[in-house]
Amino acid sequence: MLFMVEMQVNIPLGFDAEEGARLKLAEKMRFQELQAAGTWRHIWRVVGQYANVSVFDVESTSQLHDILMGLPLYPFMTIKVTPLCRHPSSMHEDDR
Amino acid sequence: MLFMVEMQVNIPLGFDAEEGARLKLAEKMRFQELQAAGTWRHIWRVVGQYANVSVFDVESTSQLHDILMGLPLYPFMTIKVTPLCRHPSSMHEDDR
Amino acid sequence: MLFMVEMQVNIPLGFDAEEGARLKLAEKMRFQELQAAGTWRHIWRVVGQYANVSVFDVESTSQLHDILMGLPLYPFMTIKVTPLCRHPSSMHEDDR
Amino acid sequence: MLFMVEMQVNIPLGFDAEEGARLKLAEKMRFQELQAAGTWRHIWRVVGQYANVSVFDVESTSQLHDILMGLPLYPFMTIKVTPLCRHPSSMHEDDR
Amino acid sequence: MLFMVEMQVNIPLGFDAEEGARLKLAEKMRFQELQAAGTWRHIWRVVGQYANVSVFDVESTSQLHDILMGLPLYPFMTIKVTPLCRHPSSMHEDDR
Amino acid sequence: MLFMVEMQVNIPLGFDAEEGARLKLAEKMRFQELQAAGTWRHIWRVVGQYANVSVFDVESTSQLHDILMGLPLYPFMTIKVTPLCRHPSSMHEDDR
Amino acid sequence: MLFMVEMQVNIPLGFDAEEGARLKLAEKMRFQELQAAGTWRHIWRVVGQYANVSVFDVESTSQLHDILMGLPLYPFMTIKVTPLCRHPSSMHEDDR
Amino acid sequence: MLFMVEMQVNIPLGFDAEEGARLKLAEKMRFQELQAAGTWRHIWRVVGQYANVSVFDVESTSQLHDILMGLPLYPFMTIKVTPLCRHPSSMHEDDR
Amino acid sequence: MLFMVEMQVNIPLGFDAEEGARLKLAEKMRFQELQAAGTWRHIWRVVGQYANVSVFDVESTSQLHDILMGLPLYPFMTIKVTPLCRHPSSMHEDDR
Amino acid sequence: MLFMVEMQVNIPLGFDAEEGARLKLAEKMRFQELQAAGTWRHIWRVVGQYANVSVFDVESTSQLHDILMGLPLYPFMTIKVTPLCRHPSSMHEDDR
Repeated sequence: MLFMVEMQVNIPLGFDAEEGARLKLAEKMRFQELQAAGTWRHIWRVVGQYANVSVFDVESTSQLHDILMGLPLYPFMTIKVTPLCRHPSSMHEDDR
Repeated sequence: MLFMVEMQVNIPLGFDAEEGARLKLAEKMRFQELQAAGTWRHIWRVVGQYANVSVFDVESTSQLHDILMGLPLYPFMTIKVTPLCRHPSSMHEDDR
Repeated sequence: MLFMVEMQVNIPLGFDAEEGARLKLAEKMRFQELQAAGTWRHIWRVVGQYANVSVFDVESTSQLHDILMGLPLYPFMTIKVTPLCRHPSSMHEDDR
Repeated sequence: MLFMVEMQVNIPLGFDAEEGARLKLAEKMRFQELQAAGTWRHIWRVVGQYANVSVFDVESTSQLHDILMGLPLYPFMTIKVTPLCRHPSSMHEDDR
Repeated sequence: MLFMVEMQVNIPLGFDAEEGARLKLAEKMRFQELQAAGTWRHIWRVVGQYANVSVFDVESTSQLHDILMGLPLYPFMTIKVTPLCRHPSSMHEDDR
Repeated sequence: MLFMVEMQVNIPLGFDAEEGARLKLAEKMRFQELQAAGTWRHIWRVVGQYANVSVFDVESTSQLHDILMGLPLYPFMTIKVTPLCRHPSSMHEDDR
Repeated sequence: MLFMVEMQVNIPLGFDAEEGARLKLAEKMRFQELQAAGTWRHIWRVVGQYANVSVFDVESTSQLHDILMGLPLYPFMTIKVTPLCRHPSSMHEDDR
Repeated sequence: MLFMVEMQVNIPLGFDAEEGARLKLAEKMRFQELQAAGTWRHIWRVVGQYANVSVFDVESTSQLHDILMGLPLYPFMTIKVTPLCRHPSSMHEDDR
Repeated sequence: MLFMVEMQVNIPLGFDAEEGARLKLAEKMRFQELQAAGTWRHIWRVVGQYANVSVFDVESTSQLHDILMGLPLYPFMTIKVTPLCRHPSSMHEDDR
Repeated sequence: MLFMVEMQVNIPLGFDAEEGARLKLAEKMRFQELQAAGTWRHIWRVVGQYANVSVFDVESTSQLHDILMGLPLYPFMTIKVTPLCRHPSSMHEDDR
């Protein structure tokens, strides 16, 4: 089941640089784990923003909630969730 | 080059049903042509809306403009365009 | 899986009264069918508005989309969908 | 008498962790007390947010005000209150 | 129980003048009936707008909903409802 | 001459509690002085908010400005002012 | 007593040209009558808009309301009213 | 050439009082210099706000920019600039 | 003197096609006249919209107002005007 | 390929003045380097704001993203990106 998730990241000026680097690395590792599992199906950078547009493929709204709340950078994110579904015109069997 | 395009369709109440059906069919055929060409890379329905979220892969902003303005349902659409780029964390070579 | 759906209904001034009554009756019957099935779990009127706040319990985002698009009054509705999940503090086993 | 209450919680970065945990526990206990009393009739998590959608069943607007202002996490909340009433189409006698 | 109700009236250009006058008279009579009953406690014009700010004193949200939906000019109104309660600092016993 | 004034109070987390209590008391005393004088004609709490809706009866816009700027809690307030006038349908001679 | 009034005029496409011209002339004459009386103290065009920014000097909010509601183009206007007062730094005795 | 400039001033809680007084005095002196020169043609207080509505008469957009950026309170201001021009209906030769 | 002008064009569905074509041609000719004169210095299409971003170089706000109000497609436009000035860092003598 | 980029700069009160000056100088140097390369084609100040409107001419959305994220003042900027394309009516061959 598909959801578009738009994440805007805002790390405050003067935040500890080392801790920031640690969190970004943890975020990247968690992302790749979820991408490998097929859960975090797509991610794109938004040009000019510290932000991304992503598509998640999850079993339930609870699973999505738990994943998002557990992201290392979650405390710095503003998140917008939009439920999606397959488009009837699509010719791709696996266009998720 | 990637752009997210969000399309909201609003066909007015009382619009000629036959003409509406003709336009939707033309829209579907144009979509599939562009999907087959790899230009309209992704499309998803937004739940509860006559709307979609799409990702286009184009050569230039002019190409994108011409494609959007030429869509059969364009006169009924409200469109929002967001420039995207590949995300550095992505492990998929072709995640466009 | 739970979704809050907020529906605002706007039937234009001068719309045929008989057709309007027919659509409202069809809407009510469809609602009661979905309520009996446990899909349309909650509905409340918003005070002073021709609007409701509802909670749906569905298998998938596609099912929710099909239900909403098929409502007899759908062409007159503005709809907002918010994905929900069970709250960890709730003591009610079936608080859906 | 029913009111939808939407609560967004925002605990600032760097807030004392122990005090935060104490407040969350107090909030949970107060919630369960009010849920047991039938006053806080429904609560759902909003996916991806530290937020909930709730339905309160109260005797008066004053009672609702006193309850909300007294919540342990109130100083961290942004709150939106929407008055509701029973929907005439509902078949559930106790759909509050 | 008190609610602030803000009503904006928008009668479309070209609406039948006689019917408009009839509805405004009916609205005025209904208002005075509710004012005499103590239900529609206050009403003020908003300067420069065909709009008013009102305070209702009702038994329940359902009563308020039925009153508002039944106003002769309701189909032309945009309505905003805000639940109020007595202010603890007020020295007026009946400041409703 | 009547004005609706909507006041939202926001005292920052961690503000000195004693100073806060002192300011609230001074605010209450100033309010009661103005209420006794008939200048601050109405005040209601907004449910779930540290906010009020008030109606002032003043001689001039300057008088209103001076009163508002001089409120002890003014530095913590967000204020919205709406000019009102008597409603022609009102049956109350003194509905100010 | 001073009020800033911002007026946006929107005469629909296809409105009868002769009637439009008649209303604009009546508006201009009413404006000049009020300008001569010192009531409509200032008026400026907003560049690129069929809109003006004005300053009124009136005895009461009721007077302002009656003036605005009586403007020949009122039915086509969107109006925003902002109460003003003399600025303490101004060196002009009559800066109204 | 005329521009409406709306200035909202927000000096943070706890800002050094002496420095604040010094800046306000400098602002007042700069204002009066510009008023005497005919550049800052009008200024009014917005009721209930630490804000003003002003009209500037300048030679160019650059001159206006330099004036605004050089105001002693500029770092605390939110500014909105609207280009104006003389209204054709005005009977005042010098209504600037 | 420079102004950014953003123009959104909205010709209603069902507008007479021949008249529409005539207006667009007149608009194009007027544009080219102003471009040749150096007044309409820049124009760009906004991707996916029937809209443009333009930069005008004019003698006065009145001249800009007259030009915009006289555009053949003006009755169909929503216009936003932003005053600009030369940037101090620019190395181009004629970057207008 | 053209993009309009609107940049609003907000350096917090009390930010170290020397560091601020160093960043502004670095920003200016980076700007001039990009202007000389033809990448940052246009820049204008927005009157009354610490903000600019710019037009970039880039090879790809990725190039634009990297440029913007690398600006010395980027951490203090709010950025809005709008994709543009050449306007068919323009007579200038190089109106980029």
